[in-house]
Amino acid sequence: MAGALRHDAMRAGNLAAVLGELDRTGPLTRAALAEATGLTKTTVSKLVAGLIDAGLAVESGAVRDGERGRPGTAVRLSGDRVAALGLEINVDYLSCCVVDLSRTVRLRRSRAADNRAAAPDRVIAGLRELATGALADAAALGLTVVGGTVALPGPVDRDTGTVHRAPNLGWRDVEVTGPLGLPVPVRAENEANLAALGELWFGAGPQLGDFLHVSGEIGIGAGLVVDGALFRGAHGFAGELGHVVVVPDGPACRCGGAGCLELYAGQDALLRPGGDLAALRDRLAAGDPVAVEGCERAGAALGVALAGAANLLDPETIVLGGIFAPLFHWVADPVRRELRDRLGQMRARVPAVVVSRTGAEAATLGGAGQVIRRVIAAPGDYLPQLVPPNNI
Amino acid sequence: MAGALRHDAMRAGNLAAVLGELDRTGPLTRAALAEATGLTKTTVSKLVAGLIDAGLAVESGAVRDGERGRPGTAVRLSGDRVAALGLEINVDYLSCCVVDLSRTVRLRRSRAADNRAAAPDRVIAGLRELATGALADAAALGLTVVGGTVALPGPVDRDTGTVHRAPNLGWRDVEVTGPLGLPVPVRAENEANLAALGELWFGAGPQLGDFLHVSGEIGIGAGLVVDGALFRGAHGFAGELGHVVVVPDGPACRCGGAGCLELYAGQDALLRPGGDLAALRDRLAAGDPVAVEGCERAGAALGVALAGAANLLDPETIVLGGIFAPLFHWVADPVRRELRDRLGQMRARVPAVVVSRTGAEAATLGGAGQVIRRVIAAPGDYLPQLVPPNNI
Repeated sequence: MAGALRHDAMRAGNLAAVLGELDRTGPLTRAALAEATGLTKTTVSKLVAGLIDAGLAVESGAVRDGERGRPGTAVRLSGDRVAALGLEINVDYLSCCVVDLSRTVRLRRSRAADNRAAAPDRVIAGLRELATGALADAAALGLTVVGGTVALPGPVDRDTGTVHRAPNLGWRDVEVTGPLGLPVPVRAENEANLAALGELWFGAGPQLGDFLHVSGEIGIGAGLVVDGALFRGAHGFAGELGHVVVVPDGPACRCGGAGCLELYAGQDALLRPGGDLAALRDRLAAGDPVAVEGCERAGAALGVALAGAANLLDPETIVLGGIFAPLFHWVADPVRRELRDRLGQMRARVPAVVVSRTGAEAATLGGAGQVIRRVIAAPGDYLPQLVPPNNI
Repeated sequence: MAGALRHDAMRAGNLAAVLGELDRTGPLTRAALAEATGLTKTTVSKLVAGLIDAGLAVESGAVRDGERGRPGTAVRLSGDRVAALGLEINVDYLSCCVVDLSRTVRLRRSRAADNRAAAPDRVIAGLRELATGALADAAALGLTVVGGTVALPGPVDRDTGTVHRAPNLGWRDVEVTGPLGLPVPVRAENEANLAALGELWFGAGPQLGDFLHVSGEIGIGAGLVVDGALFRGAHGFAGELGHVVVVPDGPACRCGGAGCLELYAGQDALLRPGGDLAALRDRLAAGDPVAVEGCERAGAALGVALAGAANLLDPETIVLGGIFAPLFHWVADPVRRELRDRLGQMRARVPAVVVSRTGAEAATLGGAGQVIRRVIAAPGDYLPQLVPPNNI
């Protein structure tokens, strides 16, 4: 029995080694996989057969095998079967996406919703409806969704799937994942953390070095990626950029503090009075001085807070995401000016300021990406649900 | 030859395993060391003999060996031979300490100096004099100083031993370690980083969880310790708390920015006008309302910046060090108030605010401690200089 357990653990580790190699390197022959993992060709062939049975890998035609020039049949990650769900509850919308194992986005759904006015159970019911539709559509595409992550606009207790406080929703200690009641396991995570991971995995990530990703929404969150991993802080609450103080004696903020960045550069401040993003962009494009000046002011406040963040965190790059992505042209200059003026003399280089490539989708992509990462790190955990029992 | 190299590498690894075990656990018999490291008793005995020859370990009398009750001779780290030098150049003083392998502080030297007014080579010459005296005194105690670290008040390039910019000294790109010209290898590091490590290793460290250590000097730096290691940022410049903006349109700062924390809570602001720390403490003890109000104001500014830092970094504990240690009684309350008011509604717990146990010594202790850590991690690198050649 101990021997069988050890054998299972070894097989699980080897499956992860092979799948991880396919994920990092792309299509490889079984011989190349054996060379890369140090396993025998026989072992690799068995493992690959298991991965193919489970729909995690697929044969991808003949390739030349490195310099030896012998053509062989390559194997690659399969995007045809296994997928993950990314979900988001935000202040004025609900959204979801389905991403397959090869990290292709297969479905996107989003819905405007004034969640400020709604009770948590109504909002969660709305997300359930959206997600259930997406799961049905994914099934129709032949995809098996193995799990999901829901992005929430506040500090999250990941163990219980509870958002501790979402001041812009008026929520306090609301459990989300349980009441959501989807037929796949769902975890919860802070929106800004997931958005940073979304940009890392689906956006400009690999070229950014250590970066701070700013999620401009009604609230403003940030996620710091160091060495390809999220910096979470002692309780997972790091990156609350929106509540960094920019005017100590400023007006009260919904967080209980005063003069927080979000009052000066959050979506409500940017779109005031009563406008929407499309209208603001039209006015900006037409050169409306009130609109341009509003973005200037917001960008300057954002720059002050980011200068503080750069002093404390020293990122290589700052990525402006969420609502700051479509407004990048108008907010980036004041941000860069504040960084240069406030940091330039102390440092040889101030952080580069770039636009997010994933924009408003960042958090749902990051959420789905987290599940995909988990499958690739431990495919053995998912085999039972992917392979008919007599095939394992 | 390859076999000999492999044998040397293996012996170096085993020496580190044995010395590391003594460092973590305290005095142990050779039998207990064998059990802890998985090495044979014969191998352990040879390794221990080498460590004793080099003065890194010493026999420490009979102990009962765990539950088996057989008395044996224990071995422990020796503080009698190997030591490290901690050095600091700050704006108004130079200081150094010598710490032995058992982390006992053996020597302390410091000297008031107005380094704002002096050319870098004069300041470095002053530190050389102080360090040379300390090295001579250490030698007289039978100590072999194997290396040192110099703490500098600004962002440091550790590869070249250069401080990029120390605005309070008026320095820009000054190489320190080379010109210092000591007969032992010396590295340079940012003062606030070393102070955080000093508190970790010589202060309350182990009880603090992930903590942010604040070094109140003329400038205000901070060092974040996560999982027992320093968080450095992309270029090693993280933790510049003093240049976090507390009043965006405030007066110009020597860093090139404006309204930085250091203008409101740095030593110059705290001791203004023209006083020194002892005089301020006397006035505070006598209840002088101007002095008390000054600390209130500085503490409130510090609290605003620390609320921002807590939002971004989410530490378990904030440690007030440097000049904030002797003034803790008067600055801690406004700091705690700002943290509570600005963070309390968003989080179940705000960071605890505690006083540094290492105070003004933190940076030199951290610098010496860094060298001690290096010896314990790789004792094999230091054996040649500690053991006469025919003994290795």
